[in-house]
Amino acid sequence: MQVSDTEWSTAEKQLAQTVFKRAYEREISALIEEVRDRASAIAEIDDMWRLHDFLSARRHDIDGKYDYRYSVLIFVFARLVKEGWLALDELNELDKDKITKVAALARM
Amino acid sequence: MQVSDTEWSTAEKQLAQTVFKRAYEREISALIEEVRDRASAIAEIDDMWRLHDFLSARRHDIDGKYDYRYSVLIFVFARLVKEGWLALDELNELDKDKITKVAALARM
Repeated sequence: MQVSDTEWSTAEKQLAQTVFKRAYEREISALIEEVRDRASAIAEIDDMWRLHDFLSARRHDIDGKYDYRYSVLIFVFARLVKEGWLALDELNELDKDKITKVAALARM
Repeated sequence: MQVSDTEWSTAEKQLAQTVFKRAYEREISALIEEVRDRASAIAEIDDMWRLHDFLSARRHDIDGKYDYRYSVLIFVFARLVKEGWLALDELNELDKDKITKVAALARM
């Protein structure tokens, strides 16, 4: 499956930017809520360092995941679908070939 | 001022352990409270990464600060007094020479 040299039309780029941003905002909102919950449940120092470790891991993960380059965007969308931050039908204005690739990668 | 080869009697060691632990617990309690407050005030992602940076710095600071070796304990107590985690009069069962040294270092 050749995905890294996929061409994106102007309309597809607009949709891609919108859903990319939406997925990011969803994930960040969920993360903020989880951090608040974990922080409110801190009872001892180990809980606090576990929150620190959790934030380190999530920051690293998010910094790497939200990579808006068209050469990797199919993979990014597949991961976001797999993780539940995007629904496949939010991409249904992309061309069929792209949707098929995202769906296939998201099932891996 | 020669402090690193200070001798500690058994009674002084017992007091030192008690106040060291007490200062640690005070600082950790205050930190847990601050982390809860900061977490509950998170409104956007930058606030969350600021909390992460804050935890990274505090963890590094605390790991380095609470060094229970008798060769450095005068310095550790001086820092704890300076930062408000210990009151000088909590050390008043140490010998006068040690108290004088801690007090002098805490004013620096």
